[in-house]
Amino acid sequence: MTRQQSIEVNTRGRGTYDLTGSVQEVVNRSGVHVGLCHVFCHHTSASLLLCENADPQVRADLEAFMARLAPDGDPLFRHDLEGPDDMPAHVRTVLSGTGLTLPVRDRCCTLGTWQGLYLWEHRTAAHRRRITVTVLGE
Amino acid sequence: MTRQQSIEVNTRGRGTYDLTGSVQEVVNRSGVHVGLCHVFCHHTSASLLLCENADPQVRADLEAFMARLAPDGDPLFRHDLEGPDDMPAHVRTVLSGTGLTLPVRDRCCTLGTWQGLYLWEHRTAAHRRRITVTVLGE
Amino acid sequence: MTRQQSIEVNTRGRGTYDLTGSVQEVVNRSGVHVGLCHVFCHHTSASLLLCENADPQVRADLEAFMARLAPDGDPLFRHDLEGPDDMPAHVRTVLSGTGLTLPVRDRCCTLGTWQGLYLWEHRTAAHRRRITVTVLGE
Repeated sequence: MTRQQSIEVNTRGRGTYDLTGSVQEVVNRSGVHVGLCHVFCHHTSASLLLCENADPQVRADLEAFMARLAPDGDPLFRHDLEGPDDMPAHVRTVLSGTGLTLPVRDRCCTLGTWQGLYLWEHRTAAHRRRITVTVLGE
Repeated sequence: MTRQQSIEVNTRGRGTYDLTGSVQEVVNRSGVHVGLCHVFCHHTSASLLLCENADPQVRADLEAFMARLAPDGDPLFRHDLEGPDDMPAHVRTVLSGTGLTLPVRDRCCTLGTWQGLYLWEHRTAAHRRRITVTVLGE
Repeated sequence: MTRQQSIEVNTRGRGTYDLTGSVQEVVNRSGVHVGLCHVFCHHTSASLLLCENADPQVRADLEAFMARLAPDGDPLFRHDLEGPDDMPAHVRTVLSGTGLTLPVRDRCCTLGTWQGLYLWEHRTAAHRRRITVTVLGE
């Protein structure tokens, strides 16, 4: 059994946006009891993050870590067509990844107690992001 | 055909733990000849690593690299509820990833000659980690 | 339905090699209309990159970023059996990843407009790299 559905997310610029509920809903409706759920972000400057969901400071610290590693306006980068956050957004996307695969059991993704699924917008401006959820199994 | 099984691993704290044999055993028993094997770690401070399996120094060097990039007690981090290794463990997990998908052929994961599959514990204390292996295919 | 095929790529040393066309061809021939396509690189010093495909400077900047983060001959590394680029190649592979899963719709991977799929060779010398493409779905 294979089910596929797209989700659109309007971001308000750099930061994380909780997708856990939306993805679980797609999996539940798919009717797949055991299998895999794949989530994919069709962009090169936004990624998907599986991360501690209890203390928002964890995501703020991850943001600070990325800002230190690949700061906006970093003189190392020559690609800056869309501004000082253009190339840092590509780097952050490569390091965190645009696809996540999760195990499915009893019609839901069996995440750990502290695992939340987030869209991670890396551009400073607001963007509309397209995500595709594919559920495979029995 | 879909098969799913969980594995529990007791770590002795920070370091890598070879899972290659345990995962291959699950795949072999699944009866799937051609398809995919997905391995997932249900935690936010331990990850899965596909890495050179011949010289243990490679994994020691990876540990040193992460310690330079996100050191314990890094003053950048504000989240330290569980100690100086708490937030660095989350960062290392995001950078290395909690899920791995591998091709299956002839009832085993077709890893490259030098590829080993490891659980990477990022906390300094011992932990019990839950891993789910899902095998899909024919 | 499950289809699996291997691709061999001869690299000319460090850099990126576009695989988008080759992978789309395998997916198209598989006959799978809706599902997932998994691409896997059977090595520990070459990875797979999903990246901006319009301006080649983006990939040059990613290379510069990795060179700053894990430079050849970095005194931190003790594993250097195959030269100063040996351990940096392993680090870059772990950070960027050896597997990618993509959604399939209408017999092709539904990549975003700006997403290209590249083999990322991290060794300075030419290598022959093996890649396996697995397509699952209906």
